[in-house]
Amino acid sequence: MTNASITVLGLGAMGSAITARLRETGYDTTVWNRTAAKTEPHVEAGSRAAPTVAEAIKTGDFVLVVLLDHASVREQLEPVADALKEKVVINLTTTTPNESRATAAWAAEHGIAYLDGAIMAVPEMIGGPGSRLLYSGDENAYAIARTILETLGTADYEGTDAGLASLKDMALLSAMDLMFTGYVQAIAMMRTVGVSAYDTAEEVQAWLGAMLPHGRGLAEIIDGRTYETGGQSADFTRAAQASMITASREQGIRADLLEPHLKLLNELAATGRGGKDWLAIIELLTIK
Amino acid sequence: MTNASITVLGLGAMGSAITARLRETGYDTTVWNRTAAKTEPHVEAGSRAAPTVAEAIKTGDFVLVVLLDHASVREQLEPVADALKEKVVINLTTTTPNESRATAAWAAEHGIAYLDGAIMAVPEMIGGPGSRLLYSGDENAYAIARTILETLGTADYEGTDAGLASLKDMALLSAMDLMFTGYVQAIAMMRTVGVSAYDTAEEVQAWLGAMLPHGRGLAEIIDGRTYETGGQSADFTRAAQASMITASREQGIRADLLEPHLKLLNELAATGRGGKDWLAIIELLTIK
Ligand SMILES: NC(=O)c1ccc[n+]([C@@H]2O[C@H](COP(=O)([O-])OP(=O)(O)OC[C@H]3O[C@@H](n4cnc5c(N)ncnc54)[C@H](OP(=O)(O)O)[C@@H]3O)[C@@H](O)[C@H]2O)c1
Ligand SMILES: NC(=O)c1ccc[n+]([C@@H]2O[C@H](COP(=O)([O-])OP(=O)(O)OC[C@H]3O[C@@H](n4cnc5c(N)ncnc54)[C@H](OP(=O)(O)O)[C@@H]3O)[C@@H](O)[C@H]2O)c1
Repeated sequence: MTNASITVLGLGAMGSAITARLRETGYDTTVWNRTAAKTEPHVEAGSRAAPTVAEAIKTGDFVLVVLLDHASVREQLEPVADALKEKVVINLTTTTPNESRATAAWAAEHGIAYLDGAIMAVPEMIGGPGSRLLYSGDENAYAIARTILETLGTADYEGTDAGLASLKDMALLSAMDLMFTGYVQAIAMMRTVGVSAYDTAEEVQAWLGAMLPHGRGLAEIIDGRTYETGGQSADFTRAAQASMITASREQGIRADLLEPHLKLLNELAATGRGGKDWLAIIELLTIK
Repeated sequence: MTNASITVLGLGAMGSAITARLRETGYDTTVWNRTAAKTEPHVEAGSRAAPTVAEAIKTGDFVLVVLLDHASVREQLEPVADALKEKVVINLTTTTPNESRATAAWAAEHGIAYLDGAIMAVPEMIGGPGSRLLYSGDENAYAIARTILETLGTADYEGTDAGLASLKDMALLSAMDLMFTGYVQAIAMMRTVGVSAYDTAEEVQAWLGAMLPHGRGLAEIIDGRTYETGGQSADFTRAAQASMITASREQGIRADLLEPHLKLLNELAATGRGGKDWLAIIELLTIK
């Protein structure tokens, strides 16, 4: 399979890292980028550059798409749909689950084997031990491409619904984003008494590292929907949240980031569920 | 110092754990609780029970207060202010920084040595290796009480401003709270495709564990206020946040928890700072 020929569309930070890794692994690579100048270092390093998407896909058995977003992917792929027939298209561009599903449906209409991917890594990590990529969609395409994909990082196949890789990506990024806003909130509060962001970050890291494993305990309550017993009640959590918000404002720091949790807890209380576990807020998140 | 006599006011979950630990360490303990029945197991185990706060504080050189909130602390302490003169009062009840400062000011007026504490542990952890307590206020009181306090867990003195222990407590709890809402958001999203909360929690734990150390890098940008260079721009982050919110809603999950971050990023963009590092949102948090 190392003599498979791979086309990479898009040479931004991520597409470049992926191309470099594939080339170093011994694959034959053809690259295209909207701004042609970005192909130069790759050509110097041994890749072939194509002037158009149509030219680029001619030589590849596998077409890796690493563009900005859903719109740019569809803009570049739609005109060459016929030429993609019987190729394996692997779209690593970040998209929402429904965008992934829409592209999979479009690919199916045109007889294109389609795999949707999500990259849980930054470009510098590609091919390294911490790199992980998620895939979903055509199971057969995954089986064929697997050896190639594993050179980029741990490859996890999530299922035939093409939206699954994007969904898990978005879910994990959401959790990360909330964690990082937690750093920001704590740093903002501690700055008011002259503590550096760095010192607060060290405290936060140690504290969150110790608290991280409690997530599984929370998950067990959610899986069992055992909101009646045991854990921390919504009313207790409301009081704690209110204290955090007050503390933040007392120090002259807006509490915007902390507010939605309290609002959800208040919704529980307003519907007679203040005595239940605070985790019951998850049931409010489901849009009826 | 193990023959020091300690009074504990409040035998809820936390006051009970603290009393048990002090007793096991060899201290002479006197307990009081509003609901007197809760003193019984402690008396059986060797503590002395007092029927009133006034009686309870007579025997103690140190008075540990572990009540529900600021209001209950003031309600119980104010009538006995004179009797507390020349005692060391250590208030471990969770309060906001300004509440701690107010009690410290009240104590100073009455010639009471006052230390405000914050417990970064659950009752089961008290006295164990993971237990940590923060203290601020009267430095001399801390020096005198230190040996006692160290039996409860790692003791950290934060400074003479009595609000500092509460502030760090609230800052770290805020970060933890945001992290746990991240678990909830990710679990809610993944539940829509039948993934158990437990499986999602395992994924989140591994992912956040890997991302946690990046907090220091973020802190360096904030300390240096180097929002012009390097990191991830507000505009890029806005697009990423919008995708997460869309992904969540596509799956039928409310995105309330994710919204405030995007709103702050939009504020940056609206004031011409969309090209700056997303961390510049921290400057918006300061109330002018
Ligand atoms: N970088 C990361 O850390 C990271 C991590 C995980 C996932 N991702 C995802 O990987 C994808 C690429 O990210 P990146 O970091 O490589 O981004 P980038 O450095 O900004 O590169 C964007 C690429 O998309 C191209 N592009 C944009 N609009 C286009 C259009 N309408 N038609 C054709 N090409 C277009 C750009 O071409 P020009 O050179 O002509 O502008 C460039 O090749 C994104 O979906 C991103 O979310 C990135
Ligand atoms: N539990 C934890 O994991 C934890 C962790 C860190 C910090 N803390 C803090 O520790 C403090 C105590 O927590 P806890 O878990 O022990 O709470 P708890 O089990 O609910 O006990 C509350 C205690 O406060 C007493 N109380 C409430 N209102 C009172 C009033 N007006 N006058 C006199 N006593 C009153 C209760 O007396 P009755 O028995 O008569 O109701 C009981 O002794 C809180 O500030 C909490 O935030 C707790």
